[in-house]
Amino acid sequence: MITGPPRGMRDFYPEDARLKNWLFGLWREVSESFGFEEYDGPVVEAEELYIRKSGEEIVGQLYNFEDKGGRRLALRPEMTPTLARMIIAKGASLPRPIKWFSIPQCFRYERMSRGRKREHYQWNLDIVGVEDVTAEAEVIAAAAEFLRRIGLGKDDFRVFLSNRRLLAALLKCRGLADDKFAGVCLVIDKKTKETDEALRAMMGEIGLSPEMVERIFEVLQIRTLEEAERVLLDAGAPIEALQETRRVFDCLSFYGVEDFCQFDISIVRGLLYYTGPVFEFYDFERKFRAICGGGRYDNLLESYGGERITAVGLGFGDVVITEILADKGLLPSFERKLDFVVIPFSENERKVATELSQSLRAKGKRVSTLLEAKKLRKALADADRAGAEKVAIVAPDELAVGRVVVRDMLTGEENAVPIGEVC
Amino acid sequence: MITGPPRGMRDFYPEDARLKNWLFGLWREVSESFGFEEYDGPVVEAEELYIRKSGEEIVGQLYNFEDKGGRRLALRPEMTPTLARMIIAKGASLPRPIKWFSIPQCFRYERMSRGRKREHYQWNLDIVGVEDVTAEAEVIAAAAEFLRRIGLGKDDFRVFLSNRRLLAALLKCRGLADDKFAGVCLVIDKKTKETDEALRAMMGEIGLSPEMVERIFEVLQIRTLEEAERVLLDAGAPIEALQETRRVFDCLSFYGVEDFCQFDISIVRGLLYYTGPVFEFYDFERKFRAICGGGRYDNLLESYGGERITAVGLGFGDVVITEILADKGLLPSFERKLDFVVIPFSENERKVATELSQSLRAKGKRVSTLLEAKKLRKALADADRAGAEKVAIVAPDELAVGRVVVRDMLTGEENAVPIGEVC
Repeated sequence: MITGPPRGMRDFYPEDARLKNWLFGLWREVSESFGFEEYDGPVVEAEELYIRKSGEEIVGQLYNFEDKGGRRLALRPEMTPTLARMIIAKGASLPRPIKWFSIPQCFRYERMSRGRKREHYQWNLDIVGVEDVTAEAEVIAAAAEFLRRIGLGKDDFRVFLSNRRLLAALLKCRGLADDKFAGVCLVIDKKTKETDEALRAMMGEIGLSPEMVERIFEVLQIRTLEEAERVLLDAGAPIEALQETRRVFDCLSFYGVEDFCQFDISIVRGLLYYTGPVFEFYDFERKFRAICGGGRYDNLLESYGGERITAVGLGFGDVVITEILADKGLLPSFERKLDFVVIPFSENERKVATELSQSLRAKGKRVSTLLEAKKLRKALADADRAGAEKVAIVAPDELAVGRVVVRDMLTGEENAVPIGEVC
Repeated sequence: MITGPPRGMRDFYPEDARLKNWLFGLWREVSESFGFEEYDGPVVEAEELYIRKSGEEIVGQLYNFEDKGGRRLALRPEMTPTLARMIIAKGASLPRPIKWFSIPQCFRYERMSRGRKREHYQWNLDIVGVEDVTAEAEVIAAAAEFLRRIGLGKDDFRVFLSNRRLLAALLKCRGLADDKFAGVCLVIDKKTKETDEALRAMMGEIGLSPEMVERIFEVLQIRTLEEAERVLLDAGAPIEALQETRRVFDCLSFYGVEDFCQFDISIVRGLLYYTGPVFEFYDFERKFRAICGGGRYDNLLESYGGERITAVGLGFGDVVITEILADKGLLPSFERKLDFVVIPFSENERKVATELSQSLRAKGKRVSTLLEAKKLRKALADADRAGAEKVAIVAPDELAVGRVVVRDMLTGEENAVPIGEVC
């Protein structure tokens, strides 16, 4: 007897589905208000779409398998490779910039700990073909707008923003070899999960000297863009990446969201394909994992064999935000709602009851007809539990004079209403 | 370089996604108007949920695999087992009857022929816990209502309805052993795809004599419920199944959909769990595969270890109906639509352009802001292609007097409007 879903996956009973639809509805609403178009792709993709130079957690956690035809496939762990593949397939026929969104279910075969799941739904926003960091500001502003609409304000979340190009420039000033940078990013990304000791050990494992490791930790002490600028200027290093980062903040201020945002040199993201500005949203107290995150990826499309097109993306999962809303008591109630339950007094009244139900549906009402006779008292209790606003009782005496009894379930008031006037 | 989805699976570019959302939106609308509640389950389930006594096409086409933990899993081929599992898990705590719907993506590892796919989305409607065939009439009426809303009428489709209990009674009259009935159903289900010769051969393979096979073909010649009744009465056989089938038609007439519906003894459905009334919708000319189908299943929940609860279900795929709509020229156009494109004349106007965009969004408008400077002529052409109704141009001269130029993209009319009055 199997009663549960596979380990790490979720069933959505009606009240869970209502919550999901509420989130998805707001994601769609915000996406469309920013002019993004929805797209979708297969939940299963060729495994090679996800096999990259490695080191990334996501590749180690791939939910992969072989199909009956011997093809190596994987449940998608993220949407960006599908996006890249789809854009490459259309080539120059897609007008740029491309502003697309999607709400895919994504899978990771993780150790099951701390209530983590093996799937989540993830709102993806991507802007492809805009070199300017106006694109970063746009996706951050859209995510902030979504948070506003679900009831989170200034004191509930913060956006931490950095720039891989800036971090690379700073670390280069301190002597880090270019070819070590990607590995260092993957270690720094673990900063909130691991102790400094553990991070030092990991840096040692990728071949860094203890002195180099200390210099990296010094760079991670940088708190402001001004400090970062001083380090670069002192070393005579180029400051383009710094200026680019400053411009992200300027653009964010145009959207009125700069108050939520702060520079944090330790934000790098766990995916190797990011190349520029990167960001993560957290709840204000940082009690939860990241709400969402994203950044600039310049080379992903090229790496799949397409032309080089720069892009900015954001991924926003359904699990963490739901935990935060629940924690703050901000989850609305997701009760079942019906406009009418129509109750035939006996099978003799079924025809009229069904016709009445159909005419109410034609008026846009949500109507459930009692499909099998039961005691009136029981039928009314069931209708109440089903969230019915009104109940229409089709009974022989009233029907003889062309009427049905309409009961307001909130007040308990009952009226015999001409059958054509029920509404 | 991978540019396509896995074989048999679909990418949904924005215009495909708009079509999908249109279908799903109408499915949801109709489901809710009939008082169904949405639920959802995992796209991957334990393989054993689908392993049944066999013979069914669906089991042979299972998209199954082993995960890293050695678990046998499968991409769901249909939703009913998930529904059954979820209902069993909640036991008596779920108020009956249960009226649930879902729009899962389902997978079959089929031979790739005639443009068939390995996945489709399938609207599922199920009523659990209603013994009366009012439940069959309800799901059929809901599907008919959906077809009406997408623009199909009386001359576009027909519902073919039968009853496995009735067929069993008729075949028993003609000497068929009870234990051969399930196998015979699976052969009859192939009636539209195979020649009579092939069907005869298949019946031989399950151990039926040539005489028995001919008698089955005679039963399949029955055209009306009256004929069926005569056969049963002549044999002194019970006629409950006949009366039950008649009542389905009576109940359908209460919904005003009886004109679409006709008795067809050869409708059996390809799944072994059906036990009573079964039905399939086809386009009027039967040029396409079934639009949707379903029926009564009495024993599925019990077979998973739950209590015995009767249920009625309907599955309605997205592929065939889309083909039919396209064939009839009834597919609406799914163009991109934007209310506004906001164009800053240069980077100096970006702040105002962004603020204007945000204020239009706050008024519920879908707004795309030009994220990177381009020639005005090019920007206008892009806005037109993106389906913009209006364009707001934020240019220095007008801005100096607090105005922006609003262009109606349909008429080409341009006006300098005070910035707070753009709408």
